[in-house]
Amino acid sequence: MARKVDPERQEARRQEVVAAAMQCFAEKGIHATSTAEICRVAGMSAGNLFYYFPSKDAIVQAIAEYDRRDMAVIFDEAKAQADAINGIMFILDASLTQSGDPAFARLSLEIATEATRNPAVAAMFVDHEVLMIEAFCTLLERGVEQGTVDPELDFEKAALWLIAIAEGAIGHVVLGRPFDPKAHHDILVRLVKRFLAP
Amino acid sequence: MARKVDPERQEARRQEVVAAAMQCFAEKGIHATSTAEICRVAGMSAGNLFYYFPSKDAIVQAIAEYDRRDMAVIFDEAKAQADAINGIMFILDASLTQSGDPAFARLSLEIATEATRNPAVAAMFVDHEVLMIEAFCTLLERGVEQGTVDPELDFEKAALWLIAIAEGAIGHVVLGRPFDPKAHHDILVRLVKRFLAP
Repeated sequence: MARKVDPERQEARRQEVVAAAMQCFAEKGIHATSTAEICRVAGMSAGNLFYYFPSKDAIVQAIAEYDRRDMAVIFDEAKAQADAINGIMFILDASLTQSGDPAFARLSLEIATEATRNPAVAAMFVDHEVLMIEAFCTLLERGVEQGTVDPELDFEKAALWLIAIAEGAIGHVVLGRPFDPKAHHDILVRLVKRFLAP
Repeated sequence: MARKVDPERQEARRQEVVAAAMQCFAEKGIHATSTAEICRVAGMSAGNLFYYFPSKDAIVQAIAEYDRRDMAVIFDEAKAQADAINGIMFILDASLTQSGDPAFARLSLEIATEATRNPAVAAMFVDHEVLMIEAFCTLLERGVEQGTVDPELDFEKAALWLIAIAEGAIGHVVLGRPFDPKAHHDILVRLVKRFLAP
């Protein structure tokens, strides 16, 4: 009789593999990590790992998908803020808090580098950016109604610079320079408010 | 009789190796590139390459040093601008023009990733950032005298966000999204002027 498949247990195992892989990738890089090392860190046989993920590429894609899901939650919460500027700051604060974690920052850089060579990862990154631009544009339109955003502004271009700011701490953090996201909240409020104001 | 060493010829050969390595690294990544491939692209024997650079690491460090030298020229030109805001925009425009080249953007990402594992490369990156912060702080002080920069602003923090903006197009460009640096000049003048104004 075939063993019953428990979807929750399956998902939990997938997440364990992804967590083990993230640890390895952040420490050694994606290229230099073997599936054997991921198995060792996950405490899993090669056959078992293969059952969940047919390749290292599939694990990288799963990491990008989990990240995309997390970001979608943040974008929804941001759009739920009544005040447009608060919504934009919600996204920036959330991104900076993530980047402030050196392992996350290093992994972001690894996956961005992987995206330059792996079209599937690149497509997910572009999707991610499109979602982010869409969230910022929704908030910018709301800001126009609320009188805090200049209706003459090119929203797509403005969104690109808000993304640059959201991701701007990553290079800083991976190079081991101290960065406290909370200490930058006020200066970013100033930057965002003044940049966008009519 | 020993062959005479011509320093200019030596430097030209070093630059040829560096150009060949940059091409390989941008295409395949630093880890996946062998010194044999660099030799092939440079049209040079392994023994000859070894004479100029004892290791792949030494080539990576040379790339970072050339970049640092280029940036120092840009910072000097920026500081030579009488108007502080023009000086800041000079650095941003120069950085965005570099990032707009997909090969440069990809190589920047490669070398930043390498810096997370190679302390010598990381040290050069931190040096580079210190130089950039120093250039921005000089210009911010001048802006205070000229009445275009708020004396209450935390210069070090403000410089960090100017760096984020200077490097903000890299992620965009490496993922193959169209980016025209000139098309962003006006929106960045707006961002910088308003952010810094008293």
